Amino acid sequence: MTIDSNQTWRDLTPLMNPRSVAVVGASQRTDTLPNREPRGNRVIRNLKNFGYPGRIIAINPKYREVMDCRCYRDLAAIPEPVDCVVLAVPNRSVPDLLESAAAAGVRAAVVFAAGFAETGAEGKSRQTRLEALSRERGFLICGPNCYGVLNVFGKAPLFASSIPPGFLAGPVALVSQSGGLSTTIANALMLNRHVGLSHIVSCGNQSGATFEEYFNYFVEDENTRVIAAFVEGFKQPERLLAVARKAVEYQKPLIILKGGRSEVSKRAAATHSGSLAGAAEVVDAAFRQGGIVSVRSLNELIDAVSVFSCEGFLKLYRGGRRIGVLSGSGGECTLVSDAAVNVGLEVPELTETTKSQLQEAVADFGNMNNPLDGTGAMYDDPNIFPRLLRALIDDSNIDVVTINLEANDPRPKELKSGNRFAAAIEKAAGSSTKPITCFSSVVGGPVDPEILLPLRAASVPLMEGAECATSTIERLAEYYEFKKSSSKPSTAPTIEQLDKTLSSGIMPAEAAFQLFQQFGILTVPTVFVRSAEEASRAAERVGFPVVLKIESPDVTHKSDVGGVALGLANVSDVRAAYERMHSQVAQCAPTAKIAGVIVQRMAGAGLEMILGINRDPLFGPVVLCGFGGILVELLKDVVVGIPPLSFEQARDMIARLRGFPILAGLRGKPPADIDSLCQAVVGVSHLAMSLGDRLAGLDINPLIVLPKGEGVIAVDALVEIK
Amino acid sequence: MTIDSNQTWRDLTPLMNPRSVAVVGASQRTDTLPNREPRGNRVIRNLKNFGYPGRIIAINPKYREVMDCRCYRDLAAIPEPVDCVVLAVPNRSVPDLLESAAAAGVRAAVVFAAGFAETGAEGKSRQTRLEALSRERGFLICGPNCYGVLNVFGKAPLFASSIPPGFLAGPVALVSQSGGLSTTIANALMLNRHVGLSHIVSCGNQSGATFEEYFNYFVEDENTRVIAAFVEGFKQPERLLAVARKAVEYQKPLIILKGGRSEVSKRAAATHSGSLAGAAEVVDAAFRQGGIVSVRSLNELIDAVSVFSCEGFLKLYRGGRRIGVLSGSGGECTLVSDAAVNVGLEVPELTETTKSQLQEAVADFGNMNNPLDGTGAMYDDPNIFPRLLRALIDDSNIDVVTINLEANDPRPKELKSGNRFAAAIEKAAGSSTKPITCFSSVVGGPVDPEILLPLRAASVPLMEGAECATSTIERLAEYYEFKKSSSKPSTAPTIEQLDKTLSSGIMPAEAAFQLFQQFGILTVPTVFVRSAEEASRAAERVGFPVVLKIESPDVTHKSDVGGVALGLANVSDVRAAYERMHSQVAQCAPTAKIAGVIVQRMAGAGLEMILGINRDPLFGPVVLCGFGGILVELLKDVVVGIPPLSFEQARDMIARLRGFPILAGLRGKPPADIDSLCQAVVGVSHLAMSLGDRLAGLDINPLIVLPKGEGVIAVDALVEIK
Repeated sequence: MTIDSNQTWRDLTPLMNPRSVAVVGASQRTDTLPNREPRGNRVIRNLKNFGYPGRIIAINPKYREVMDCRCYRDLAAIPEPVDCVVLAVPNRSVPDLLESAAAAGVRAAVVFAAGFAETGAEGKSRQTRLEALSRERGFLICGPNCYGVLNVFGKAPLFASSIPPGFLAGPVALVSQSGGLSTTIANALMLNRHVGLSHIVSCGNQSGATFEEYFNYFVEDENTRVIAAFVEGFKQPERLLAVARKAVEYQKPLIILKGGRSEVSKRAAATHSGSLAGAAEVVDAAFRQGGIVSVRSLNELIDAVSVFSCEGFLKLYRGGRRIGVLSGSGGECTLVSDAAVNVGLEVPELTETTKSQLQEAVADFGNMNNPLDGTGAMYDDPNIFPRLLRALIDDSNIDVVTINLEANDPRPKELKSGNRFAAAIEKAAGSSTKPITCFSSVVGGPVDPEILLPLRAASVPLMEGAECATSTIERLAEYYEFKKSSSKPSTAPTIEQLDKTLSSGIMPAEAAFQLFQQFGILTVPTVFVRSAEEASRAAERVGFPVVLKIESPDVTHKSDVGGVALGLANVSDVRAAYERMHSQVAQCAPTAKIAGVIVQRMAGAGLEMILGINRDPLFGPVVLCGFGGILVELLKDVVVGIPPLSFEQARDMIARLRGFPILAGLRGKPPADIDSLCQAVVGVSHLAMSLGDRLAGLDINPLIVLPKGEGVIAVDALVEIK
Repeated sequence: MTIDSNQTWRDLTPLMNPRSVAVVGASQRTDTLPNREPRGNRVIRNLKNFGYPGRIIAINPKYREVMDCRCYRDLAAIPEPVDCVVLAVPNRSVPDLLESAAAAGVRAAVVFAAGFAETGAEGKSRQTRLEALSRERGFLICGPNCYGVLNVFGKAPLFASSIPPGFLAGPVALVSQSGGLSTTIANALMLNRHVGLSHIVSCGNQSGATFEEYFNYFVEDENTRVIAAFVEGFKQPERLLAVARKAVEYQKPLIILKGGRSEVSKRAAATHSGSLAGAAEVVDAAFRQGGIVSVRSLNELIDAVSVFSCEGFLKLYRGGRRIGVLSGSGGECTLVSDAAVNVGLEVPELTETTKSQLQEAVADFGNMNNPLDGTGAMYDDPNIFPRLLRALIDDSNIDVVTINLEANDPRPKELKSGNRFAAAIEKAAGSSTKPITCFSSVVGGPVDPEILLPLRAASVPLMEGAECATSTIERLAEYYEFKKSSSKPSTAPTIEQLDKTLSSGIMPAEAAFQLFQQFGILTVPTVFVRSAEEASRAAERVGFPVVLKIESPDVTHKSDVGGVALGLANVSDVRAAYERMHSQVAQCAPTAKIAGVIVQRMAGAGLEMILGINRDPLFGPVVLCGFGGILVELLKDVVVGIPPLSFEQARDMIARLRGFPILAGLRGKPPADIDSLCQAVVGVSHLAMSLGDRLAGLDINPLIVLPKGEGVIAVDALVEIK
């Protein structure tokens, strides 16, 4: 693969793994309450507790030494420049300090303070200065409005929050826009899933380093195997797909919880981290095209990381959605089946071989099938559970074995029952050829480390709740399919002859149609005319029946002003329609400048669809396609994709339309020309790439999709140039 | 209200609160492992530990005494009959034992054993004997295949599972089909929510007492204020709505998690429209019509019970969906907003007054709005959190105050931060005029009793996770609206003149149309004819243009065999069509018996809908209504209701159609006659009640809904009589 060949990324090492750190805002004040300790002191304490191998310097004009570290008056006074400066100071001082740091040869900074782009005009202008430093001088900044960076293997916690002892090192790099959630997620992973971390980054407002840059750093980092993120907004969305594909290439799952899907939450995100959240559908399309594992809640994020970071489990997974469920509760069997079907998994019947073997092994149970209910009997007879588990592992109808296991640390202890099953699972997992995972019924309650730790060691990841567990396995199946699919990123062909000297505004219909033809999109034979006489000659040329449409830069909804005449069968109809149209438009839109009229042959009978380009505030041009009429009006049945799109990607898009069965041929009707529709989607995606920022919007409505083999044809179009 | 006036319910007291209990299956064997202890002994231990005030008798021919209880050889040997017998014996002995118990004057039984209707033919026949005892002799049976009954205030645990010390008594009665889930749910409520229980019933196969009977018992029980249930299937669905309405009348929320949504929906009814309304939708409709709080996961059940059982919280709630969110994490603010909007709640802007007050109080924060992000600052300055909380309580735009609170028992302890906020919440709740609830970000991890208990005492219920919390508040709003609405249960009028001597099979079109007219549903003028001559005279009578349709009990899809001719404008067209139709049908369906032809006036232009009656295997006749054509084919856009339906209920149904905007007048089109459509829905619901079990199915397709004021008209119909 030649992905990312023309992408260059900044080296984040001075920020992520600095050889030396200067802390501004540490003091000799030693308050005892941990939450009243100055943040600068907390950073020095974190560095020391974690065994930071580099040099720690304090910056404070009042002292020569703070917490056994050499203390300088200011950054310029340090004899040799440091890699990274940590600013634990109020927001007002930050821009000056960073500019002097850059001048003193410092290469990176962590800025904790809030009060930047997420607040008023003053904050925004402060952030502008930070962004300029990053952009113009390559100065690396984590934050502002964040907890900073914690590099676990590099022992470099430039981190504002207390770090508890017993921190669990492991393969997961976590980046969270929110500082609070960064520690919430990390603690849940370590304590409730026994999943270790390689890094925690709370990236805040991303004034310098962006999500995309952190992702790239982690893709290249040898200690990281899984990247997890809580994102409110992307700063370099144009690079997201490139880094996502690089992550797929490096076999590192990138799991993202994207907040800010609704209007209200977009407002919340803007005030929290100054982020533009982007349209939810566009973000979903980008995630899908990039092979990003998209989760919808904190608990799904935690369970997805639990599974995707379990290497032994992943090695045994060969794709597929068929789960085998083993439980001691019939009720839970019912609930898991509901949850599984709800997310798109299958709970298939077991093979006849398995069923007859089970019949022999546990005769009392009657006919056993998937989900396997061990009932109360499996609590009484220790032989039952291992036999049921073995049956699922050996059954060829099953892709993933899921065990409903009460993994809670029970209160009181005498209720403890999960352990003996855990021991049986651990034993079975040792020789299992199939991935095994466990989940508890209810999410919540303390997780018993005596169950959690040995299972994790046996590559059996734990999840909580049937809903999260089934949803995570569905994500796993999708990720596997993405990796296997041939869906290579598409590249847009260069259109040499493309006229880039376009004037701003609505493009005349004829020019728009010529543009479409350059990108392989057929259009209805169309002639621009200025008189009734020209119109009738044109109608004879394109062939009857024809349509007349008024051509005016001031009229967008032509039919509203009498600017459309359909089904004109002969010359005299054309003449009459031409005159009537002019008088009607003059009456309805007296100020509209009329350029003339276009004459079109009526398109053949087919399905009316829409195809267009929209500009997303975050991702730029986005291709959208859907059905005309009621399905769009009522159900917003539209799919989107980020250009450039390959034919396969276009096909995936179209197949996700709820109305897809209409295209495929509903109720015995002939199938439509889906291939040509996909080619048209690819075509407008290339058009969007070629016109770049000049394209404000494009709307082909309708695009007639003819029966299979007969193509598609654009009837009316609106192209706006910036 | 006169609900339930003609409903009589059995008195469950001998089962739920027996004065004496005989235990069959207790022994002098005293194994030490708690899980190897005979279930009979466990029941006696439970009874003694719980301080059961009644008489405990053991039944075992080997002993005179078991666990200090008098032991008899068999039930007949007991001097005076006991209220309830507990059978901790293998399934084979159960039917004989119960029959002898009934003969000995015992009035109720708890049967733990599995191996009845849930297994093969032998088990089913065993259960049949139990059902006969219940039905014919009024013998009350809990189970089989269950854990039994635990009456907390009556101190009567006829319960197979160990009961931990420290059991929390309270207002919640829990009935679960699954034994395992009954204790899982109960433990989660007591330990993670500090919610106490009045009863636990694991009802198993409901061979005797049914969910509906337990619900009725709890509605009348003075110790119970909330009823929670995990249900796989109902045994007396025809009584469910009655008991649900009684629960509403008694102000006792009935909260149900219904499992088996996917399994049950496979049992789709046979007729074409039956496949559109699977059983899950029917259960949903019943729950909606009964004011049952319907939840979708164990965690939603637990959180709903947490809130609905918090009396102080409910007292302050005055309806409404506007939540105010307070958090110390901006990321959580974003996620809560996403979750809230997703379930239908609002996160409104605060009033200008509140905003300016906040501006003064916490000037550094810039513009504050809902959700309120206290940021890291609220951890440092103890004055901030109470001010923000007060602002939400006082703001007139807010209906419910929700606080994102880390309520975990932190590991290690030094991370503990929630407590000081809990103290501030407790204080504010004391004088709050508004309901306050707390929720943690991540579901899972141990809940800190130091936070949980005082907040619960202050009527601040705890929930876990933004998704569950917002979903629960939405349920609360719906329940409140149901209680306030005037939606009285509908009663069907008696149709005196209804011809009940109907013959089985497909009803002739003319008769079906006459039946509709009796229930106020207009039909297109229709005449049945047997010759071309009759057809042309009939056409002149009903008025041109007309439609001809073949009439044959053997042809269901008439157009497939050339049996429909549309738009016939004059007598000669009618004659020609009549002859052509006969020859075509003879060719396409040579064996079909042709009764004749019907002549109909073409219906006016309107929206084509379908309206019908389907038989659900559980709930019997169900009304369904939806759009004809693509919306039904593709999107299954159908709504269902349980007859009889009132006009308001019909309106609620119709308003839930995704295509409802089409009826209301999409894109400037005139609105359709929605009132007449609702009347027709009411009409078929009354028809279903009148025909009762004779009606196998009914399908009006299409029902033309004309513009507002012009009514609806049935064009074609299929009525099948059993």
